[in-house]
Amino acid sequence: MAGPRAKGEAPRIGVGMMGYGFMGKAHSNAYKTQPYMMYPPVAIPELVAICGRDKKHVEEAQKRYGYRKHYTDWKKMLDDKEVQLFDNGGPNDAHAEPSIAAARAGKHVFCEKPLARTAQEAKTMLDAVKKAKVKHQAAFNYRFVPAVRQAYELIKSGKLGRIYHYRAVYLQEWIMPQYDTPLIWRLQKKLSGSGALGDLGAHIIDLGRHLIGEIESVSALTRVDVDDAFVAVVEYESGAIGTLEATRYAGGRKNHNRFEINGEKGTIVFDLERLNELEVYWVDEEPKETRGFHRVSVTEGYHPFISNWWPHGHIIGWEHAMVHEVNHLLDCIVNDKDVAPLGADFEDGYRCAVICDAILESARSGKRIACKY
Amino acid sequence: MAGPRAKGEAPRIGVGMMGYGFMGKAHSNAYKTQPYMMYPPVAIPELVAICGRDKKHVEEAQKRYGYRKHYTDWKKMLDDKEVQLFDNGGPNDAHAEPSIAAARAGKHVFCEKPLARTAQEAKTMLDAVKKAKVKHQAAFNYRFVPAVRQAYELIKSGKLGRIYHYRAVYLQEWIMPQYDTPLIWRLQKKLSGSGALGDLGAHIIDLGRHLIGEIESVSALTRVDVDDAFVAVVEYESGAIGTLEATRYAGGRKNHNRFEINGEKGTIVFDLERLNELEVYWVDEEPKETRGFHRVSVTEGYHPFISNWWPHGHIIGWEHAMVHEVNHLLDCIVNDKDVAPLGADFEDGYRCAVICDAILESARSGKRIACKY
Amino acid sequence: MAGPRAKGEAPRIGVGMMGYGFMGKAHSNAYKTQPYMMYPPVAIPELVAICGRDKKHVEEAQKRYGYRKHYTDWKKMLDDKEVQLFDNGGPNDAHAEPSIAAARAGKHVFCEKPLARTAQEAKTMLDAVKKAKVKHQAAFNYRFVPAVRQAYELIKSGKLGRIYHYRAVYLQEWIMPQYDTPLIWRLQKKLSGSGALGDLGAHIIDLGRHLIGEIESVSALTRVDVDDAFVAVVEYESGAIGTLEATRYAGGRKNHNRFEINGEKGTIVFDLERLNELEVYWVDEEPKETRGFHRVSVTEGYHPFISNWWPHGHIIGWEHAMVHEVNHLLDCIVNDKDVAPLGADFEDGYRCAVICDAILESARSGKRIACKY
Amino acid sequence: MAGPRAKGEAPRIGVGMMGYGFMGKAHSNAYKTQPYMMYPPVAIPELVAICGRDKKHVEEAQKRYGYRKHYTDWKKMLDDKEVQLFDNGGPNDAHAEPSIAAARAGKHVFCEKPLARTAQEAKTMLDAVKKAKVKHQAAFNYRFVPAVRQAYELIKSGKLGRIYHYRAVYLQEWIMPQYDTPLIWRLQKKLSGSGALGDLGAHIIDLGRHLIGEIESVSALTRVDVDDAFVAVVEYESGAIGTLEATRYAGGRKNHNRFEINGEKGTIVFDLERLNELEVYWVDEEPKETRGFHRVSVTEGYHPFISNWWPHGHIIGWEHAMVHEVNHLLDCIVNDKDVAPLGADFEDGYRCAVICDAILESARSGKRIACKY
Repeated sequence: MAGPRAKGEAPRIGVGMMGYGFMGKAHSNAYKTQPYMMYPPVAIPELVAICGRDKKHVEEAQKRYGYRKHYTDWKKMLDDKEVQLFDNGGPNDAHAEPSIAAARAGKHVFCEKPLARTAQEAKTMLDAVKKAKVKHQAAFNYRFVPAVRQAYELIKSGKLGRIYHYRAVYLQEWIMPQYDTPLIWRLQKKLSGSGALGDLGAHIIDLGRHLIGEIESVSALTRVDVDDAFVAVVEYESGAIGTLEATRYAGGRKNHNRFEINGEKGTIVFDLERLNELEVYWVDEEPKETRGFHRVSVTEGYHPFISNWWPHGHIIGWEHAMVHEVNHLLDCIVNDKDVAPLGADFEDGYRCAVICDAILESARSGKRIACKY
Repeated sequence: MAGPRAKGEAPRIGVGMMGYGFMGKAHSNAYKTQPYMMYPPVAIPELVAICGRDKKHVEEAQKRYGYRKHYTDWKKMLDDKEVQLFDNGGPNDAHAEPSIAAARAGKHVFCEKPLARTAQEAKTMLDAVKKAKVKHQAAFNYRFVPAVRQAYELIKSGKLGRIYHYRAVYLQEWIMPQYDTPLIWRLQKKLSGSGALGDLGAHIIDLGRHLIGEIESVSALTRVDVDDAFVAVVEYESGAIGTLEATRYAGGRKNHNRFEINGEKGTIVFDLERLNELEVYWVDEEPKETRGFHRVSVTEGYHPFISNWWPHGHIIGWEHAMVHEVNHLLDCIVNDKDVAPLGADFEDGYRCAVICDAILESARSGKRIACKY
Repeated sequence: MAGPRAKGEAPRIGVGMMGYGFMGKAHSNAYKTQPYMMYPPVAIPELVAICGRDKKHVEEAQKRYGYRKHYTDWKKMLDDKEVQLFDNGGPNDAHAEPSIAAARAGKHVFCEKPLARTAQEAKTMLDAVKKAKVKHQAAFNYRFVPAVRQAYELIKSGKLGRIYHYRAVYLQEWIMPQYDTPLIWRLQKKLSGSGALGDLGAHIIDLGRHLIGEIESVSALTRVDVDDAFVAVVEYESGAIGTLEATRYAGGRKNHNRFEINGEKGTIVFDLERLNELEVYWVDEEPKETRGFHRVSVTEGYHPFISNWWPHGHIIGWEHAMVHEVNHLLDCIVNDKDVAPLGADFEDGYRCAVICDAILESARSGKRIACKY
Repeated sequence: MAGPRAKGEAPRIGVGMMGYGFMGKAHSNAYKTQPYMMYPPVAIPELVAICGRDKKHVEEAQKRYGYRKHYTDWKKMLDDKEVQLFDNGGPNDAHAEPSIAAARAGKHVFCEKPLARTAQEAKTMLDAVKKAKVKHQAAFNYRFVPAVRQAYELIKSGKLGRIYHYRAVYLQEWIMPQYDTPLIWRLQKKLSGSGALGDLGAHIIDLGRHLIGEIESVSALTRVDVDDAFVAVVEYESGAIGTLEATRYAGGRKNHNRFEINGEKGTIVFDLERLNELEVYWVDEEPKETRGFHRVSVTEGYHPFISNWWPHGHIIGWEHAMVHEVNHLLDCIVNDKDVAPLGADFEDGYRCAVICDAILESARSGKRIACKY
């Protein structure tokens, strides 16, 4: 997964983590797990500091995850010379300013998705990291699920031929009334900038761009009364067409990030609820008598991600993709590689924001909107 | 399923069948099976005559299925006094004229879908049957799949509450090059009027109208170079939003007519490839520990369709829905019932055509198109 | 499926059907459907007579299915010269005597399974049909499910290599108290001779013999208080080992006749509840990246059974296997072919009975019992 | 999951780990993850020492996982006063002597399964830990899979009523020739004492005892030429009957530890390859129209294991069960609780060994063997 591994002592990268909620926990776990699981490590992340607004909580998080220091002001953390990588796991309204400041301070930046609340905001972030010549990664972690990487390789190698269709949904249910979900920042438009579109839609837009290519236009509908569920039909530059949909009002769908790709030579299906599996169909490579969807268990050691974990057939969980993602970023930093196209960089984050804006514009105007990057 | 069954001898209805291809075979099978399987029969169809252009083939079909006579000119068949029900299983370009003539001749009309090649054409057919006061049924046979009927009853009874989302696809693969499909009429635009849209799309548009309600607007894309695959986002009058897609270039999808409905209180999923099953999820009727999608095997005798067939757990096939559909029409004829809303009538066929036209118009113009019935 | 089809008029075979219950209905449907679906027909069954003890019911059945005559005494029906094929769809205690008498009267015999209540009884039947030189078929209809035939061909062709394991269950639920099942003959030991063992176990024993080969020994347990559920481990002459289990107390299992076969080169899985599908895994014929269980939809026209029905991807139901089975028997009769090994003959029925006896003996004695044929 | 959590600083337990292979890695990961994931921790494991025969490898493992010291002689490690908990992750032939010595030295003992190569060997281990009054846990980690715990609670609460059937298989494929598996200790009878029986069979025997109750007798077959695959029928003291099977020659089965339990009121199905799911069927608690197997996603915060990890719908991996298992043992140590019945103790390990011996004896003798504990 990473390139050639360091001989002798692996280089150390000081991490400054912003946020101690869900993402703070998931990212911290990735930094703690990577050195002994992605082994030998391409680099070793040092847990320098964690930052958050509430002193009591951030102190507890410091101790829980083993950070050396804590800050309640992200500006102070960015002054810390030991911090080389700024990890922005804060709410969407706190992505732009700290990330830009970090870039200006010469820190590499790893920022949660959606990169920003608008394309314009994302553009300022992209400009900043490019100008500062730091590494930048947008946390589209599903690119690092083993089965998704496998789909990516199959498509890039031409095994599916020309792509005709991409249909993707990201369906959840947890904000339906019966779940008594507290009003976290994700559900406050002021803080998140969007609902299902930014939280879920951004993921499937990114996966579509990663797997199929650039999106040319969108025609969409949204339902703003109930969160901001959206449906859209999209055209890809390659000529493929597709559907995109995200909602958090789909009863029974726990974390149903699913895509299906139909190509000239085959079909691929993925579902995050069974992330260790990939379904693949070959149109005419097999005898008719046994042709059918292959339910591929992506749990064998030939896979560059899986080889780091357990033997044949031992499944991994949701957070493992983040360990691969962190490892990729560390590899890019210490070996001066590009984050894209395997990972998503801020350019990807920006383009995703352009598409989100176009979806909202199409829903408002009733017109097909061309995406201009 | 049918209402009160006839005492003593069931009335007999003379059938004149047009077409001896796939649909001619399927409809003939339905007429032959209904009397001893939908038992006791509400009416007994008499196989009076079969009609087709090729004399040799129609003679063979007459003998094969046991019709008493054959015709090579549908006008002659419509002159036959013994024919009370005209079954139009011909290609799409032969739907309007014979069906209208049949209505004028006082025959009940059962016509394959899509009812017509355009809304305008469909309107002439609707006007004719209404004027003639004959029974009219459009062959949207999937309304008669037991699991679909079950979904319909669940929704109508309010069990799902307000409906949020309807997502439907009808995916097939059989015209992909590797299948060496001959150039049948279904693939000739002159005869069919459309490709995937009329052949497959019409089915999922009809199911959406049947289950969710009237469609208000569509925004769509088509790909005319490869058949006429389409994708669309739709608004229902009820406020629900959805996606529709049909293609015959989806490798591995044999007959994948699938819908998912998310409502306030639950979710329902159906897939024609496993037509004996229905997936149902209740949002908060069950303890968390065992809450999940129910994989319901719709193969038990409590179901009004299934009770006609085999004991508990013996699955039925694709053509059985057509037996139920024919039985429904016979029941409507002899007991003077309305074909709709359980079955689709020509009004449904016409409205479906309006939506197909709107999809094409939206794809052409790039605008959201309101459906005007 | 059948051999070369008759040119001109197909020969006619007069059928005398005993029984008008579930099996009478299913067999009658097969005779009525075969001529126009297995087309052109190898032979045409004439519905000469139906026989049953209750005059009112048998008269109704005669009319319902279109038999020319009815009898209330099977001996009289066997005197009928027009009856060439005796179809025994009666309860298990009425298998031996009428079948033997039919053979002696020179009728071909098609008898429901289990062939007899004991191996000894089955042997008298086998001796009778061999002596009479009539065709004899035991109604192990699952040999005629398209997916099962496909599994058979894959194994016989050597594609799976040496077979290691056969695990089969036949699980149902319908006699559990909540289903309020009436006390039909199937549930009365006096009439049926056995419960789950004869009704369900016989099917999976036969499929194991058909697919894997002869059984050498069994070690078994039964539970007689609740029906006669049994579990057994078995050795095949080929060296394969396996498990067999049948019960009618498995909640949720509607008609779960499932087997899995692991061979040197691959694995095959079948489940009657999804009888249009077959799962196949090849151990090392495919690249690792896409190796996995193939979910094969056995619904394409290359298959000799499916080609008779509907186009690509239109599934068939439970009773269709019986149409294939009847067609096979007619083919054997008119073309003087052997019913086995594609179908099961009375030799198969007898050997199945030997194994059932051995299971009971092992359960009683606690010892591994060698099967002696 | 654990009982009341410690206030203030959690107690620390010094761990001495024997083995640095697959199990050494998995156990070390559990000790490293537990303190910040099972939060606040009931106790904090201190990674005191790791032990293995090869100095170079054990030094590398020490550094990789962060142990303070290493040993090449387990006896020396047992002399280390800082070691309070001895974790035996060595091969099967190194279970008894070190574990007994550890107990005598007053260390708590956590030993991998199967506990020993024979019941007699297991008995000496059980006697030692009982005499020493230390905590003892046998690493039957699947008891700690969230879905398995859920099944356990459902059964214990009486929700399934009387249990009729338990059918379990543990199927793998990785020693089939195409996988070029190296001759690790697991495949050497001298070191492992058994093959599929001890490696896989022990797991399903333990789960059966955990979920259903004690086993009374077994009738079995083994195939010693190809590993030692076995099949067995078993009687439980409760009257339930079942089948057990394990093989490593089942192509396509990656890690297929599956059980199905049929009870008076419902059915439960589990498969380790989809360990985040549980299938549950209620016999008569639901309306017929929507009755079916529930596919329960065991990924919600109500579950005492899941609440430690991620939000709603984020699946966990194989190794997470081991984190729960380690946490349970630490809880038992610091709060003086019994390891059983939630976890497996050495009594469970011993009884499992008795059953393994009985399986071999039955296969050899052809007789049903009573299990005597």
